Amino acid sequence: MLGGVSEALWDRSRCSVAGTLAVVGEKWSLLVLREAFFGVRRFADFQRLLGAPKAVLSDRLATLVEQGVLARVPYQADGERQRHEYRLTTKGRDLYPTLVALMQWGDTYLSDGPAPLELQHRDCGAPVHLELRCEAGHEVAGARDVRPVRQTPVG
Amino acid sequence: MLGGVSEALWDRSRCSVAGTLAVVGEKWSLLVLREAFFGVRRFADFQRLLGAPKAVLSDRLATLVEQGVLARVPYQADGERQRHEYRLTTKGRDLYPTLVALMQWGDTYLSDGPAPLELQHRDCGAPVHLELRCEAGHEVAGARDVRPVRQTPVG
Repeated sequence: MLGGVSEALWDRSRCSVAGTLAVVGEKWSLLVLREAFFGVRRFADFQRLLGAPKAVLSDRLATLVEQGVLARVPYQADGERQRHEYRLTTKGRDLYPTLVALMQWGDTYLSDGPAPLELQHRDCGAPVHLELRCEAGHEVAGARDVRPVRQTPVG
Repeated sequence: MLGGVSEALWDRSRCSVAGTLAVVGEKWSLLVLREAFFGVRRFADFQRLLGAPKAVLSDRLATLVEQGVLARVPYQADGERQRHEYRLTTKGRDLYPTLVALMQWGDTYLSDGPAPLELQHRDCGAPVHLELRCEAGHEVAGARDVRPVRQTPVG
Protein backbone atom coordinates (compact mmCIF):
# COMPACT_ATOMS: atom_id res chain seq x y z
CA MET A 1 0.00 0.00 0.00
CA LEU A 2 2.47 2.57 1.13
CA GLY A 3 4.98 1.84 -1.62
CA GLY A 4 2.73 3.48 -4.17
CA VAL A 5 1.79 6.40 -1.95
CA SER A 6 5.38 6.97 -1.03
CA GLU A 7 6.57 6.88 -4.61
CA ALA A 8 4.02 9.36 -5.81
CA LEU A 9 4.65 11.64 -2.86
CA TRP A 10 7.66 13.55 -4.03
CA ASP A 11 10.76 13.85 -6.15
CA ARG A 12 13.58 12.08 -4.33
CA SER A 13 16.22 13.86 -6.40
CA ARG A 14 15.46 16.99 -4.36
CA CYS A 15 15.66 15.20 -0.98
CA SER A 16 17.23 17.35 1.73
CA VAL A 17 18.36 14.32 3.71
CA ALA A 18 20.35 12.99 0.75
CA GLY A 19 21.65 16.49 0.00
CA THR A 20 22.86 17.02 3.54
CA LEU A 21 24.50 13.59 3.56
CA ALA A 22 26.35 14.56 0.38
CA VAL A 23 27.89 17.45 2.34
CA VAL A 24 28.49 15.93 5.78
CA GLY A 25 27.33 12.31 5.58
CA GLU A 26 30.66 10.80 6.26
CA LYS A 27 31.94 9.61 9.59
CA TRP A 28 35.05 11.79 9.68
CA SER A 29 33.20 14.92 8.55
CA LEU A 30 30.71 14.64 11.37
CA LEU A 31 33.45 13.91 13.92
CA VAL A 32 35.42 16.93 12.63
CA LEU A 33 32.30 18.99 13.28
CA ARG A 34 31.93 17.48 16.76
CA GLU A 35 35.44 18.71 17.57
CA ALA A 36 34.73 22.10 15.98
CA PHE A 37 31.75 22.49 18.32
CA PHE A 38 34.09 21.77 21.24
CA GLY A 39 36.25 24.66 20.04
CA VAL A 40 38.96 22.79 18.13
CA ARG A 41 40.35 24.86 15.25
CA ARG A 42 43.79 23.65 14.26
CA PHE A 43 44.68 20.86 11.89
CA ALA A 44 47.13 19.30 14.36
CA ASP A 45 44.49 19.28 17.11
CA PHE A 46 41.84 17.70 14.88
CA GLN A 47 44.36 15.08 13.88
CA ARG A 48 45.47 14.24 17.39
CA LEU A 49 41.96 14.17 18.85
CA LEU A 50 40.39 12.17 16.05
CA GLY A 51 43.29 9.91 15.12
CA ALA A 52 42.22 10.34 11.48
CA PRO A 53 44.77 9.69 8.74
CA LYS A 54 46.28 13.01 7.68
CA ALA A 55 45.23 12.72 4.04
CA VAL A 56 41.65 11.83 4.95
CA LEU A 57 41.45 14.71 7.40
CA SER A 58 42.86 17.15 4.81
CA ASP A 59 40.33 15.98 2.31
CA ARG A 60 37.37 16.27 4.71
CA LEU A 61 38.42 19.73 5.90
CA ALA A 62 38.80 20.89 2.29
CA THR A 63 35.29 19.63 1.47
CA LEU A 64 33.78 21.30 4.53
CA VAL A 65 35.50 24.59 3.59
CA GLU A 66 34.38 24.28 -0.03
CA GLN A 67 30.82 23.71 1.15
CA GLY A 68 30.96 26.75 3.42
CA VAL A 69 30.51 24.75 6.63
CA LEU A 70 33.97 25.72 7.93
CA ALA A 71 35.99 28.84 7.10
CA ARG A 72 39.76 28.59 6.73
CA VAL A 73 41.20 31.62 8.47
CA PRO A 74 44.88 32.66 8.69
CA TYR A 75 46.33 33.21 12.16
CA GLN A 76 49.79 33.78 13.52
CA ALA A 77 50.92 33.02 17.05
CA ASP A 78 53.89 35.03 18.46
CA GLY A 79 57.15 33.91 16.89
CA GLU A 80 55.46 31.24 14.79
CA ARG A 81 54.90 31.13 11.06
CA GLN A 82 51.45 31.89 9.72
CA ARG A 83 49.04 28.99 9.90
CA HIS A 84 45.38 28.47 9.19
CA GLU A 85 42.59 27.53 11.50
CA TYR A 86 39.13 26.20 10.77
CA ARG A 87 36.11 27.97 12.19
CA LEU A 88 32.46 27.05 12.02
CA THR A 89 30.42 29.38 9.83
CA THR A 90 26.73 30.06 10.49
CA LYS A 91 25.97 27.29 8.00
CA GLY A 92 28.23 25.01 10.01
CA ARG A 93 26.80 26.01 13.40
CA ASP A 94 23.36 25.17 12.06
CA LEU A 95 24.47 21.52 11.94
CA TYR A 96 24.40 21.49 15.74
CA PRO A 97 20.93 19.89 15.98
CA THR A 98 22.13 17.09 13.69
CA LEU A 99 24.99 16.30 16.06
CA VAL A 100 22.71 16.57 19.09
CA ALA A 101 20.24 14.17 17.42
CA LEU A 102 23.02 11.63 16.80
CA MET A 103 24.22 12.08 20.37
CA GLN A 104 20.79 11.69 21.97
CA TRP A 105 20.17 8.44 20.13
CA GLY A 106 23.58 7.09 21.07
CA ASP A 107 23.03 8.12 24.69
CA THR A 108 19.76 6.19 24.74
CA TYR A 109 20.83 3.03 22.94
CA LEU A 110 24.60 2.68 23.10
CA SER A 111 25.75 3.91 26.51
CA ASP A 112 26.06 1.50 29.35
CA GLY A 113 25.65 3.66 32.39
CA PRO A 114 25.23 7.43 32.24
CA ALA A 115 25.76 9.25 28.95
CA PRO A 116 29.35 10.53 28.66
CA LEU A 117 28.29 14.17 28.25
CA GLU A 118 25.35 16.19 29.41
CA LEU A 119 24.38 19.31 27.48
CA GLN A 120 23.39 22.11 29.84
CA HIS A 121 21.72 25.42 29.08
CA ARG A 122 24.34 28.09 29.83
CA ASP A 123 21.75 30.46 31.22
CA CYS A 124 20.08 28.17 33.73
CA GLY A 125 22.05 24.92 33.88
CA ALA A 126 19.09 22.70 32.97
CA PRO A 127 19.73 19.76 30.62
CA VAL A 128 19.14 20.52 26.93
CA HIS A 129 17.28 18.19 24.56
CA LEU A 130 16.03 18.21 21.00
CA GLU A 131 12.28 18.19 20.69
CA LEU A 132 9.88 17.90 17.80
CA ARG A 133 7.32 20.64 18.09
CA CYS A 134 4.73 22.13 15.79
CA GLU A 135 4.26 25.83 15.16
CA ALA A 136 1.04 25.75 17.14
CA GLY A 137 3.22 24.86 20.16
CA HIS A 138 2.33 21.18 20.56
CA GLU A 139 5.00 18.68 21.42
CA VAL A 140 5.15 16.02 18.72
CA ALA A 141 5.96 12.53 19.97
CA GLY A 142 7.47 11.10 16.81
CA ALA A 143 7.16 10.11 13.17
CA ARG A 144 3.66 8.68 13.62
CA ASP A 145 2.32 12.10 14.54
CA VAL A 146 3.86 13.74 11.48
CA ARG A 147 2.49 13.85 7.94
CA PRO A 148 4.99 14.66 5.17
CA VAL A 149 3.35 16.87 2.54
CA ARG A 150 4.90 17.60 -0.81
CA GLN A 151 5.43 21.26 -1.55
CA THR A 152 5.11 22.21 -5.17
CA PRO A 153 7.81 24.54 -6.46
CA VAL A 154 6.37 27.87 -7.56
CA GLY A 155 6.56 28.94 -11.24
CA MET B 1 43.11 27.46 24.57
CA LEU B 2 40.19 25.24 23.81
CA GLY B 3 42.30 22.36 22.54
CA GLY B 4 43.42 21.58 26.06
CA VAL B 5 40.02 22.12 27.64
CA SER B 6 38.39 20.02 25.01
CA GLU B 7 40.86 17.18 25.37
CA ALA B 8 40.52 16.97 29.12
CA LEU B 9 36.77 17.20 28.93
CA TRP B 10 35.84 13.63 28.26
CA ASP B 11 36.69 10.20 26.94
CA ARG B 12 36.07 10.21 23.20
CA SER B 13 35.99 6.42 23.03
CA ARG B 14 32.53 6.60 24.64
CA CYS B 15 31.23 9.29 22.24
CA SER B 16 27.56 8.78 21.37
CA VAL B 17 27.94 10.64 18.07
CA ALA B 18 30.65 8.23 16.92
CA GLY B 19 28.69 5.28 18.28
CA THR B 20 25.55 6.26 16.40
CA LEU B 21 27.54 6.83 13.22
CA ALA B 22 28.93 3.29 13.57
CA VAL B 23 25.34 2.02 13.41
CA VAL B 24 23.73 4.33 10.83
CA GLY B 25 26.47 6.70 9.65
CA GLU B 26 26.45 5.63 6.10
CA LYS B 27 24.60 7.27 3.27
CA TRP B 28 22.59 4.23 2.20
CA SER B 29 21.63 3.31 5.78
CA LEU B 30 20.14 6.72 6.42
CA LEU B 31 18.34 6.73 3.08
CA VAL B 32 16.95 3.23 3.84
CA LEU B 33 15.62 4.71 7.09
CA ARG B 34 14.15 7.67 5.21
CA GLU B 35 12.15 5.23 3.06
CA ALA B 36 11.18 3.17 6.11
CA PHE B 37 9.70 6.31 7.68
CA PHE B 38 7.66 6.78 4.50
CA GLY B 39 6.29 3.28 5.03
CA VAL B 40 8.48 1.28 2.65
CA ARG B 41 8.98 -2.31 3.87
CA ARG B 42 9.95 -4.58 1.01
CA PHE B 43 13.39 -5.19 -0.40
CA ALA B 44 12.23 -4.64 -3.98
CA ASP B 45 10.66 -1.29 -3.05
CA PHE B 46 13.76 -0.07 -1.22
CA GLN B 47 15.82 -1.08 -4.22
CA ARG B 48 13.62 0.61 -6.80
CA LEU B 49 13.18 3.81 -4.80
CA LEU B 50 16.81 4.19 -3.79
CA GLY B 51 18.52 2.80 -6.86
CA ALA B 52 21.07 1.21 -4.53
CA PRO B 53 23.10 -1.76 -5.77
CA LYS B 54 21.41 -4.96 -4.58
CA ALA B 55 24.45 -6.24 -2.66
CA VAL B 56 24.94 -2.91 -0.88
CA LEU B 57 21.27 -2.72 0.05
CA SER B 58 21.32 -6.32 1.37
CA ASP B 59 24.32 -5.53 3.45
CA ARG B 60 22.86 -2.32 4.91
CA LEU B 61 19.52 -3.97 5.71
CA ALA B 62 21.33 -6.86 7.41
CA THR B 63 23.33 -4.42 9.56
CA LEU B 64 20.23 -2.44 10.51
CA VAL B 65 18.45 -5.68 11.49
CA GLU B 66 21.48 -6.89 13.43
CA GLN B 67 21.57 -3.57 15.29
CA GLY B 68 17.86 -3.81 16.12
CA VAL B 69 16.93 -0.72 14.12
CA LEU B 70 14.79 -2.70 11.69
CA ALA B 71 12.99 -6.01 12.32
CA ARG B 72 12.83 -8.61 9.54
CA VAL B 73 9.30 -10.00 9.62
CA PRO B 74 7.86 -12.81 7.43
CA TYR B 75 4.73 -12.03 5.45
CA GLN B 76 2.83 -13.80 2.72
CA ALA B 77 0.56 -12.14 0.19
CA ASP B 78 -2.26 -14.25 -1.35
CA GLY B 79 -0.91 -16.77 -3.83
CA GLU B 80 2.66 -15.62 -3.36
CA ARG B 81 5.54 -17.35 -1.65
CA GLN B 82 6.56 -16.22 1.81
CA ARG B 83 8.76 -13.13 1.84
CA HIS B 84 10.22 -10.86 4.49
CA GLU B 85 9.59 -7.23 5.13
CA TYR B 86 11.55 -4.71 7.16
CA ARG B 87 9.83 -2.73 9.87
CA LEU B 88 11.16 0.03 12.07
CA THR B 89 11.55 -1.00 15.70
CA THR B 90 11.22 1.51 18.55
CA LYS B 91 14.98 1.89 18.41
CA GLY B 92 14.66 2.65 14.71
CA ARG B 93 11.76 5.05 15.11
CA ASP B 94 13.84 6.98 17.62
CA LEU B 95 16.17 7.92 14.76
CA TYR B 96 13.43 10.17 13.40
CA PRO B 97 14.87 13.38 14.94
CA THR B 98 18.21 12.59 13.27
CA LEU B 99 16.54 12.44 9.86
CA VAL B 100 14.52 15.57 10.58
CA ALA B 101 17.72 17.39 11.61
CA LEU B 102 19.42 16.40 8.34
CA MET B 103 16.32 17.44 6.42
CA GLN B 104 15.96 20.83 8.12
CA TRP B 105 19.55 21.73 7.37
CA GLY B 106 19.20 20.64 3.75
CA ASP B 107 15.96 22.61 3.43
CA THR B 108 17.74 25.72 4.69
CA TYR B 109 20.97 25.49 2.75
CA LEU B 110 20.51 23.24 -0.27
CA SER B 111 17.01 23.86 -1.64
CA ASP B 112 16.47 26.45 -4.30
CA GLY B 113 12.88 27.43 -3.85
CA PRO B 114 10.57 25.85 -1.30
CA ALA B 115 11.67 22.71 0.55
CA PRO B 116 10.46 19.58 -1.23
CA LEU B 117 8.50 18.30 1.79
CA GLU B 118 6.79 19.97 4.68
CA LEU B 119 6.28 18.00 7.89
CA GLN B 120 2.87 18.69 9.40
CA HIS B 121 1.49 17.78 12.79
CA ARG B 122 -1.23 15.18 12.13
CA ASP B 123 -3.41 16.57 14.90
CA CYS B 124 -3.45 20.23 13.91
CA GLY B 125 -1.74 20.56 10.53
CA ALA B 126 0.87 23.06 11.74
CA PRO B 127 4.45 22.68 10.41
CA VAL B 128 6.74 20.59 12.63
CA HIS B 129 10.32 21.55 13.50
CA LEU B 130 13.11 20.33 15.72
CA GLU B 131 13.95 22.65 18.58
CA LEU B 132 16.63 22.70 21.22
CA ARG B 133 15.01 23.25 24.57
CA CYS B 134 16.12 22.94 28.15
CA GLU B 135 14.20 21.11 30.85
CA ALA B 136 13.32 24.42 32.45
CA GLY B 137 11.36 25.13 29.26
CA HIS B 138 13.65 27.72 27.64
CA GLU B 139 14.23 27.65 23.93
CA VAL B 140 17.95 27.26 23.26
CA ALA B 141 19.21 29.11 20.18
CA GLY B 142 22.24 26.95 19.39
CA ALA B 143 25.60 25.54 20.37
CA ARG B 144 26.78 28.80 21.93
CA ASP B 145 24.06 28.59 24.56
CA VAL B 146 24.97 25.04 25.50
CA ARG B 147 27.70 23.83 27.85
CA PRO B 148 28.81 20.20 27.49
CA VAL B 149 29.51 18.71 30.93
CA ARG B 150 31.25 15.39 31.44
CA GLN B 151 29.28 12.87 33.43
CA THR B 152 31.36 10.57 35.53
CA PRO B 153 30.36 6.90 35.35
CA VAL B 154 29.23 5.61 38.75
CA GLY B 155 31.24 2.90 40.53
